[in-house]
Amino acid sequence: MAIHQLWDNYPTIQQELIATQSIMERSVKIRNKEMTEALQLFFKSGGKLLRPAYFLLFSQFGQVPSEKSKYQLAASLEILHTATLIHDDIIDESPVRRNLPSIQAVYGKDIAVYAGDFLFTVYFQLIASSTDDMKALETNAAYMKKILVGELDQMHLRYNPNITIKQYLQHIRGKTAQLFQLSCYQGAHFSNASKSVQLLAQRIGYHIGMAFQILDDVLDFSSTTEELQKPVLEDIRNGYYTLPLIYAMTQKPQEFKVLLQPDQDVTTEQLQDILRLIQQTDGVGYATKLAERYTNKALKDIQRLPDIEAKFILQTITEQLLTRKN
Amino acid sequence: MAIHQLWDNYPTIQQELIATQSIMERSVKIRNKEMTEALQLFFKSGGKLLRPAYFLLFSQFGQVPSEKSKYQLAASLEILHTATLIHDDIIDESPVRRNLPSIQAVYGKDIAVYAGDFLFTVYFQLIASSTDDMKALETNAAYMKKILVGELDQMHLRYNPNITIKQYLQHIRGKTAQLFQLSCYQGAHFSNASKSVQLLAQRIGYHIGMAFQILDDVLDFSSTTEELQKPVLEDIRNGYYTLPLIYAMTQKPQEFKVLLQPDQDVTTEQLQDILRLIQQTDGVGYATKLAERYTNKALKDIQRLPDIEAKFILQTITEQLLTRKN
Repeated sequence: MAIHQLWDNYPTIQQELIATQSIMERSVKIRNKEMTEALQLFFKSGGKLLRPAYFLLFSQFGQVPSEKSKYQLAASLEILHTATLIHDDIIDESPVRRNLPSIQAVYGKDIAVYAGDFLFTVYFQLIASSTDDMKALETNAAYMKKILVGELDQMHLRYNPNITIKQYLQHIRGKTAQLFQLSCYQGAHFSNASKSVQLLAQRIGYHIGMAFQILDDVLDFSSTTEELQKPVLEDIRNGYYTLPLIYAMTQKPQEFKVLLQPDQDVTTEQLQDILRLIQQTDGVGYATKLAERYTNKALKDIQRLPDIEAKFILQTITEQLLTRKN
Repeated sequence: MAIHQLWDNYPTIQQELIATQSIMERSVKIRNKEMTEALQLFFKSGGKLLRPAYFLLFSQFGQVPSEKSKYQLAASLEILHTATLIHDDIIDESPVRRNLPSIQAVYGKDIAVYAGDFLFTVYFQLIASSTDDMKALETNAAYMKKILVGELDQMHLRYNPNITIKQYLQHIRGKTAQLFQLSCYQGAHFSNASKSVQLLAQRIGYHIGMAFQILDDVLDFSSTTEELQKPVLEDIRNGYYTLPLIYAMTQKPQEFKVLLQPDQDVTTEQLQDILRLIQQTDGVGYATKLAERYTNKALKDIQRLPDIEAKFILQTITEQLLTRKN
């Protein structure tokens, strides 16, 4: 079972991610073989395991009370992430995820709805069985709620030609940044790292999450399908207007008025016009710069962490994420 | 805000259900007004609130540590139930729920997916904030998993003409009986009732749940749409073969071989033939008798409970459920 090449240079974290993935695979073993296999295949499909990785890295700033609990908590974060991905793919009717057909494409929407629900229960169970700290559970519940509210925001803003940069940032905060924040914070908290490291972890996770999502949205414009492992320009077609487009809209409001109508799909012709306007206004450049600013904030805070190996891995990985092509 | 007339004769429990419902309504207040309103409307749409009610009734066999936590836990059970209903309606493409258009019919499947997910988080949050008992959380997580596995079983058995009575009973155990069991058990456990009451509560909940689901399935055959508040014969049309039909299949296997094909919808003509065969074999009578047996087991155990008011309400309500028409 191969772990994403991102971790090739870090054998320790690589081993820890293998342990995490093995818990993920075991945790979905149920009598419904079809479901178990579908989910196990999905887990093996080469995700970067960023959320567990950040959790594990931050857990090195203290002393973890139990190895088993550590991997369970790491797994719970990726499980929660997977649940939201599977449900997102239903809504987007997305045929592909990580170069494989999506769960909803292979098994149908019905299975996909319950597959996501089932993963929510696994997430819940993994946390409940890995900590005695009621506060940690409340924290998880509160973050999970923010993530869902972020998804709802996104849904609400779909096909809305009046979406503002502020609204965009608010919904990616919920949808993506919260889970990165939780992952980093929980790692520091679980290992009982110092309060200042815990605070830094929260901020670092938040800024990495913001940068990560903006870049993800940028890649939908700038990469090829093969690199991205999912169809490009899917976002606009699905009514998700992301930063490069929203910025272009602020620069050319008149032009966009005729191109984007509330609640309407765009034609291939309109799509070409939109892309041209985004190029003219350098919407991709604007978004990339904003992602860079968030990344730099994260890197500055990482500098403040105690000098242990995890610090340098955090630094390199976080820089690498900024230049990724998929 | 009216509570279902089932509780009209029991002013104490009625008041407690009002307090529960008010927590449910508050717990879904988020900045997405559309979602908040949709869910609040759903909560007001006249469900019987059976799960919170059984929880509250069983909590009277001990001493509850906190009123607030009591209503939060009661609310969490109905919230979890509602989440599964909303997702079920997506899968069944059900247009109606409790005489109102279903969430998926009004707002679309997308909103319905996230509405259910959001309720899972609310459920999680309500439990996490209402108890310090980690064991209670693990219990909840384990039950939630069983419920989802039951839903998956049901999905797996859809449009399957070889479904057995045993398989049917296994999936309704997960899908319905587990949540009734959790509700009763949790009430007794939370109030620190005696171990023997806690054990009885588990068994009673389980048997009520089995009886309840079998009857629910029977009503799909025997009631009118108006009484049931959802279209009749929906189950067969959706590929859910329930007890009256499965029993008829065991009696007339040859006749059914030509009527039901794997993974195929039935025509209106076939539906008429199926109904005729169910009438000939008295499938409804068979199922009703089995439900009666489960109810009698529950009633026998209720007899063993200490003589407090809640015992007599449990008795009357449970008997009433057996003769319900909707």
